Amino acid sequence: MSSSPDVTATFCATLADEWVRGGVTDVVVCPGSRSTPLALAVAAQPGLRVHVHHDERSGGFLAVGLGLAARRPAVVVTTSGTAAAELHPAVVEAGLAQVPLIVATADRPPELQDVGAPQTIDQTHLYGRSVRWFAEPGVPDEVTASTWRSLGSRAVLEATGPVPGPVHLNLAFREPLIGAAGERPAGRAEGRPWITMGPRPDFVAPGLVPDSWLARRGVLVAGEGCGGGDAVHRLATRLGWPVLADPRSGVRTRRTTTIAAADAILRHGPTAARLQPEVVIRLGQPPSSKVVNQWLDGLGVEQVVVGPGGPLVDPGHRASLVVRGSVAAACGWLAAGRTTVPGPPKGWVDGWAAAEAAGQDAIERTLLDHPEPTEPGIARDTLAHLPAGAILLTSSSMPVRDLEWYGAPRDGVRVMANRGANGIDGVTSTAVGLALAAQGPTVLLIGDVAFLHDANGLLGLAGRGVDLTIVVVDNDGGGIFSFLPQAGALGPERFERLFGTPHGVDVAALAAVHGLPVARPTFAAAIGPCVAREVGEGGTRVIHLRTDRAANVAVHHEIHAAVGAALDRLG
Amino acid sequence: MSSSPDVTATFCATLADEWVRGGVTDVVVCPGSRSTPLALAVAAQPGLRVHVHHDERSGGFLAVGLGLAARRPAVVVTTSGTAAAELHPAVVEAGLAQVPLIVATADRPPELQDVGAPQTIDQTHLYGRSVRWFAEPGVPDEVTASTWRSLGSRAVLEATGPVPGPVHLNLAFREPLIGAAGERPAGRAEGRPWITMGPRPDFVAPGLVPDSWLARRGVLVAGEGCGGGDAVHRLATRLGWPVLADPRSGVRTRRTTTIAAADAILRHGPTAARLQPEVVIRLGQPPSSKVVNQWLDGLGVEQVVVGPGGPLVDPGHRASLVVRGSVAAACGWLAAGRTTVPGPPKGWVDGWAAAEAAGQDAIERTLLDHPEPTEPGIARDTLAHLPAGAILLTSSSMPVRDLEWYGAPRDGVRVMANRGANGIDGVTSTAVGLALAAQGPTVLLIGDVAFLHDANGLLGLAGRGVDLTIVVVDNDGGGIFSFLPQAGALGPERFERLFGTPHGVDVAALAAVHGLPVARPTFAAAIGPCVAREVGEGGTRVIHLRTDRAANVAVHHEIHAAVGAALDRLG
Repeated sequence: MSSSPDVTATFCATLADEWVRGGVTDVVVCPGSRSTPLALAVAAQPGLRVHVHHDERSGGFLAVGLGLAARRPAVVVTTSGTAAAELHPAVVEAGLAQVPLIVATADRPPELQDVGAPQTIDQTHLYGRSVRWFAEPGVPDEVTASTWRSLGSRAVLEATGPVPGPVHLNLAFREPLIGAAGERPAGRAEGRPWITMGPRPDFVAPGLVPDSWLARRGVLVAGEGCGGGDAVHRLATRLGWPVLADPRSGVRTRRTTTIAAADAILRHGPTAARLQPEVVIRLGQPPSSKVVNQWLDGLGVEQVVVGPGGPLVDPGHRASLVVRGSVAAACGWLAAGRTTVPGPPKGWVDGWAAAEAAGQDAIERTLLDHPEPTEPGIARDTLAHLPAGAILLTSSSMPVRDLEWYGAPRDGVRVMANRGANGIDGVTSTAVGLALAAQGPTVLLIGDVAFLHDANGLLGLAGRGVDLTIVVVDNDGGGIFSFLPQAGALGPERFERLFGTPHGVDVAALAAVHGLPVARPTFAAAIGPCVAREVGEGGTRVIHLRTDRAANVAVHHEIHAAVGAALDRLG
Repeated sequence: MSSSPDVTATFCATLADEWVRGGVTDVVVCPGSRSTPLALAVAAQPGLRVHVHHDERSGGFLAVGLGLAARRPAVVVTTSGTAAAELHPAVVEAGLAQVPLIVATADRPPELQDVGAPQTIDQTHLYGRSVRWFAEPGVPDEVTASTWRSLGSRAVLEATGPVPGPVHLNLAFREPLIGAAGERPAGRAEGRPWITMGPRPDFVAPGLVPDSWLARRGVLVAGEGCGGGDAVHRLATRLGWPVLADPRSGVRTRRTTTIAAADAILRHGPTAARLQPEVVIRLGQPPSSKVVNQWLDGLGVEQVVVGPGGPLVDPGHRASLVVRGSVAAACGWLAAGRTTVPGPPKGWVDGWAAAEAAGQDAIERTLLDHPEPTEPGIARDTLAHLPAGAILLTSSSMPVRDLEWYGAPRDGVRVMANRGANGIDGVTSTAVGLALAAQGPTVLLIGDVAFLHDANGLLGLAGRGVDLTIVVVDNDGGGIFSFLPQAGALGPERFERLFGTPHGVDVAALAAVHGLPVARPTFAAAIGPCVAREVGEGGTRVIHLRTDRAANVAVHHEIHAAVGAALDRLG
């Protein structure tokens, strides 16, 4: 390698090689000119799948989905300019949701910075504090060849560290952009990455949580980040405590200790008072339910927060003891510690179980009274009818809540959501990324506004060869606002204009423009079978369901009244 | 005002009032909950038009378009979280293109920061150095009421300063979000804004450019930022120089000194050598043409750069004298200085004029030989057939170039482009903003990839009541790459996959989903009349034109060969 373009091509080939050595399998390439050397390198690198996307915003979330499913970073390549700024929402989400991601933005060389050169913006630290690591190695130069492998390898390392997240490489390329890659600097033997991350020591601290706490009436609150598995339920059984299980926790399974209807149960004042615990152990992220979170915040008891690390997640400022590490490991030593003292009376967990049974029954019966599609029913039926091994991605704002509130416990389905920043942006693209990385089928449950927001997630989708079923719950506007004080406080005209915001877009026609087949069941009883059938067919499909925003509020109230009546009868 | 929500409502009402006093007329509201107090305040404020947009990215560019047309800031209101990050591309464009813009992002109060609260990201300095001013006044509090008017007024001031641009107000609101606005702090008398910006002194420096320079063979290069008008041509006539006029300069008008075909002319080596000037005065932004810019960079002569201010725009690092101020004023004193010495020989400007005439004639004759739509022909005919008073927005990457290269001089049309960062993002939304602010009709000339990128610019467009005709030049992929070295250096399969990137989307069907009527002329001769007719009809319309990427390269070469042959004949 002698000429400048050849050096650049070799530099890019070295990065691509280190990425593969580090476990990267997927690269999203957004077309552009300045990024040509890197686009060519990743396309030529064995072991990398390349996904082309015209819209960088969607491409960024596609990579988030890939990283979310696989827990290894996908790489996104963009050209310079606003193309790089387009990735900001996905980088923010990856940062907060702790999803590994490598963003490689092409840039112009220093002599073209800040002189009005075309498509040149200030890309240094473009994503602020959202990234785990930012590097700007300068125009590739033979002098620095001995550092190239470290650069590529470290990008993977920083993205997959104790607190995974996004890494930003800002790569300046000088014209001409097309060269021939020469011999890459020698790598480690046996295909190892330049830097290997050692295993993470999982510290255990038996006795840190006093036995006396574990002997009280307690609850486990399990959210995203529990890692699934049965360690949580084993601990619950040992302690005689219930598990308030978010769908994304992986522990909302059919166990006697599972509480799925916590939101509905705790809306019933007497029951919320009766079931107050003396200690709370929160595992992973908090639930979405405002009712559950406000109930937890108001308890005034000791709260233990166990999670894999990163900034403390404690919106209520209630944590008294924080444990950083694997939830499964922590559950193990907590269970081991519970040997010497008697636990809470048997009635404690039985009271919870009775409320859960009454709640699930009331939800089910109420929904059976509705022959038309309802949003709670769509969420419940979709989850229930998925085949084992499926992934279900739920979108903000309402679907993630409807599934949390009304989804019944079941095994064998992985439920996910972009709950780092809770945005409605990029959700379809995240689902596409999940589907690309998944072993089984992927299903997306999404509202019409989020679906339209990432309509460009549909670009090229029909040709990506993924098993993805998109269930669009279409109430023609922002359904969540009907539940907020805005709905009552404003007149209907002002409310519709600023919050209801009907758009009138025919979701099915939009899907058809992108070559996707659309099913439109019109009866509630047809929804579950339709989901099962469409998922069974394979390929990429849309199920379009029309609902009504006002009726949706009513059916939520109806369910909560039915659950309340059932709890009244429990006494 | 006593309760917290009432204070918040009064704070927001005060900002809205100051914005109106400062000249703001338009607010883009993106639906969300945390932003409720501000959304309600702007909707209630007389003098403000509210435009609702579901996609913040498109909403941001809508505001850029409004600011570009009106030269006063539009306000964008978003909720917290990635919604705020979605505005980043528009903020970057506004920063580099010097478009006034006020971004008001709602945020959560300090106690909900960095504790994993939903939809909470780090919004402090979210857009880095792209903004002219960032302010974060904290949760509204009666203690600070005396500063509210200054805050609102200063946002307008900073956005419209000597170097206009974006301003970011990050506004923390605490629940409950709905209150009643009380009496606002007293404002200045007679509806004046709290702070009024004084007139800008325009320094003149006669004699700064030596008379000996002005007596040589020189060229004026006029780009965006000239402010239009005839001052440039008066100077050119006085000096006996040609004006190489970019369409966006406002001076590519029918004058004897106008050179519009500079790109084609300077591709002809002997002519480029023969017409080399001894001095260059660049007015406003540089042209887009790489041919013209490289020719200018290679001259090795004194170059004077005159422009309204902001960071120096000089990608070739060739400026020897920089004048900051109004182009018209500078042209005035340059012309006044040219009295004492003889100018260049008459043959100098005549040589340029002859080349221009030959070039325009060759372009016209070549295009007449093509009965099918060609991209150069579409650009040329669209410009030629617009009614006087129209605005023409041209998109990156190819339309802005095709218009620069092949658009004939004409009067009465304002040509614009997002050439701050030259992005292909948000272009349709920018056009919608222009159309909302314009007096006459607006026409957008855009390629298929840029059109798809901002497909969400079509959301709600049919109901916005604007006179906007969107001319989509659809070659099913990234047409510009066919002109770059990538096209020749890679095999066709790899090129199509990474650069050509056909998407197969039916542009007309997509427009129809959003309720827009679509015209599809198939003959070149029909295009100009179709543009005239559609613009004349009023309302929002799409003209969909299919072209072919390979044929497009060929017709460009054919034109350049014809211009070259004509220049050969000139001698």
